[in-house]
Amino acid sequence: MSQKIDYLISPKWIAPVIPRSCVLEDYSVAVSQSTISKILPTNEALKNFREAPNISLPDQLLTPGFINVHSHAAMSLLRGIADDRNMMDWLSNWIWPIEEKLVDPSFVLDGTQLAGVEMIMGGTTTVADNYFFPEASSSAFASLGMRAQIGIPVLKFKNNWASDERDHLAKGLTLLNRQQDNSLQSLSLSPHAPYSVTDEGFLRVAELAKKKKIKIQLHLHETSQEIQDSLDECGLRPLARIENLGILNRSLQAIHLTQLNSDEIERLAKNEVHVGHCPESNMKLGSGICPISDLLAKNVNVAIGTDSAASNNDLDMLQEVRTASFLSKAVTNDASQIAAEDCLEMITLNGAKFLGLEHKIGSIEVGKLADLTAIDMSSIALKPVYSPVSQLIYNCTSAHISNVWIDGKRILQNKELSKFNMPELERKVDIWKEKIMSLASKIS
Amino acid sequence: MSQKIDYLISPKWIAPVIPRSCVLEDYSVAVSQSTISKILPTNEALKNFREAPNISLPDQLLTPGFINVHSHAAMSLLRGIADDRNMMDWLSNWIWPIEEKLVDPSFVLDGTQLAGVEMIMGGTTTVADNYFFPEASSSAFASLGMRAQIGIPVLKFKNNWASDERDHLAKGLTLLNRQQDNSLQSLSLSPHAPYSVTDEGFLRVAELAKKKKIKIQLHLHETSQEIQDSLDECGLRPLARIENLGILNRSLQAIHLTQLNSDEIERLAKNEVHVGHCPESNMKLGSGICPISDLLAKNVNVAIGTDSAASNNDLDMLQEVRTASFLSKAVTNDASQIAAEDCLEMITLNGAKFLGLEHKIGSIEVGKLADLTAIDMSSIALKPVYSPVSQLIYNCTSAHISNVWIDGKRILQNKELSKFNMPELERKVDIWKEKIMSLASKIS
Repeated sequence: MSQKIDYLISPKWIAPVIPRSCVLEDYSVAVSQSTISKILPTNEALKNFREAPNISLPDQLLTPGFINVHSHAAMSLLRGIADDRNMMDWLSNWIWPIEEKLVDPSFVLDGTQLAGVEMIMGGTTTVADNYFFPEASSSAFASLGMRAQIGIPVLKFKNNWASDERDHLAKGLTLLNRQQDNSLQSLSLSPHAPYSVTDEGFLRVAELAKKKKIKIQLHLHETSQEIQDSLDECGLRPLARIENLGILNRSLQAIHLTQLNSDEIERLAKNEVHVGHCPESNMKLGSGICPISDLLAKNVNVAIGTDSAASNNDLDMLQEVRTASFLSKAVTNDASQIAAEDCLEMITLNGAKFLGLEHKIGSIEVGKLADLTAIDMSSIALKPVYSPVSQLIYNCTSAHISNVWIDGKRILQNKELSKFNMPELERKVDIWKEKIMSLASKIS
Repeated sequence: MSQKIDYLISPKWIAPVIPRSCVLEDYSVAVSQSTISKILPTNEALKNFREAPNISLPDQLLTPGFINVHSHAAMSLLRGIADDRNMMDWLSNWIWPIEEKLVDPSFVLDGTQLAGVEMIMGGTTTVADNYFFPEASSSAFASLGMRAQIGIPVLKFKNNWASDERDHLAKGLTLLNRQQDNSLQSLSLSPHAPYSVTDEGFLRVAELAKKKKIKIQLHLHETSQEIQDSLDECGLRPLARIENLGILNRSLQAIHLTQLNSDEIERLAKNEVHVGHCPESNMKLGSGICPISDLLAKNVNVAIGTDSAASNNDLDMLQEVRTASFLSKAVTNDASQIAAEDCLEMITLNGAKFLGLEHKIGSIEVGKLADLTAIDMSSIALKPVYSPVSQLIYNCTSAHISNVWIDGKRILQNKELSKFNMPELERKVDIWKEKIMSLASKIS
């Protein structure tokens, strides 16, 4: 009976996500190395594993770690520099000019660490990121012990990382051919958007993704302008164009999709495309609203992303999925849409499916990796707790996250990232802030 | 030069709301008794008022206290008992049956204290409340030292407080004729909704409000069903009906208004009606969306309410106004709508105008009452801070509120309500929880 384990976690409640709608009360999770090895009643656990350390979390809920399927982490350095502007004004007149002057490996390293720290403090254990200098973001997530899909950007425009589309693809291939030495990370291809990638670029991306068996992450149908421009240019809506180019398949992670007709919803479903919904960024930039109720009704897998902190302005997955639920209820006039347990599923299991990692993460099951998030519900402002999952989705924010484990390691301990040099990061952020403010004052 | 003051507050930034768009850095507020007596640079303040205690708040922003213009505070006891249900199902099959069994003065006292504690912890200093047993909610807010408008409910339906419309009005008159002994409180009349108040009831409410010079708070055009039912019953939309009954004027605080045509927007503007926008409750109940951009364009005063925690499920004014901004940007497809400084104005000055208290509260100005909220922006997850007002609106939640003053008294001190018996309240909430769960299990 006395199997060897490393430690026990004994919260008040566990919401394992699989089985669906289940909440375990007074159960413990036993962790052995990086893996969940047992889930059993706490009184049995304490008897069976007397010698293992027990992390007792009264008044706390344990869930699978949250999965943020779309971010540009380094842009946290640009949080709040240009609010309340429409997307193309925001990008063309603010974000791109600042990026052109400043983005380099150290910007990406420091900015990604800033974002990673906020994500972990908010219960996020896995992120799909997309930014220039992917080697630098990879190092940043590795320094924090976070699980990540690192997107290799592909654009036809010159930027500080690569000179043209061919150069992006060449640099990307070098990265793909290098041996991965971090089991927490994978690479993907991130063609930026239909308007910034050529047909040849998409064909090459499709070919490379197939050969390397990797995912493709793409901003798609983000605004009505994108649709109109594509119609003007090639007579096709972007989704039809990329379908012709061989991108519309189960390897595709399509982000935003605020403009969809019913035929397009059918094609997304039929081709098993994964959808990344970023409601707060879409709302804040006035881009449109992704019809997730319709997508879910067709069994499309919908997961949740925050997008960057520059258009959100936080990286809080609980607030993000609450917004997804509220927005869906509002536009359908149906309060039963995207109920609390669907929300929890979207930020855990659906995120795992989106990344192709559902056999490893996304639920609390024996044999899965110990990516876990604990939420403290002891505050009077969360009382009374009738359903911990309702409280999680409709009341909690990042501020209530207490502990986070990734791959069995306790990364956040009682709200502290104890092993990380926070003063050093704060000092670097302050230096970037001065540089960015000085640049922005010349723009405005 | 050495005027007598009680204490200084010296934050990093002050956003006084008047003048608009102003952020003061390294300024102090001097408080004498209940009043703001001076606003001056901190280095001068420390020289001029050497003997006064100085509350130094580095990395913190000071704003006017937040004003929540629509709540049913006691319903915090029902937080999360019946989520993801449409409004009439939620009310008729869950909320009303539970209320019928349980609502009494002690339910209202305990529930209102629970809500008041959450509100203060979230930076709210003033609330307009509406519930049965208004004497009990009045006592609860008084016990916390909160500023409140206490609504006297008027309904044609029997409930635990009154037997019919006439009985509500008689009980209301008794309350109105009683001498008010709390300078922090005022009374209003709260006819529940067009579908629950008769023409005679509205006429009597209009007459009483005029005579007593008090406000009228009314749920109006909350759902499309309400409009249809009214058309079926009397051939008029509710707004037209209450206009005929003499209610549509500057004393009216109209809540929700998710269904408005352009003619109705004109009439609200012309009659100087105040609008209480509760975006999260409207979204969560699938009721509809109030067109606040259109209302603000016509100079209608729009303030923000959380509604009850049973349909929200929190009482966090920062999240509420962020949702108002995001929703408005989304439905207008215009990211410049309801910018951060408009948001701050809506939860402070517009709330004060809504309550007829703009000469006393709603901005940080010399001579106004010291209702103040401090927000701690020292967390790494809020960095970098380019604009403290942007950070407040787009990043902060209740969790960042550090200190709250009401009428010059420091009610929240470093996140603690130190003078309030919290364990006693928690014990009472636990007892109500058991009773409510047992009732709900019989319903479900």
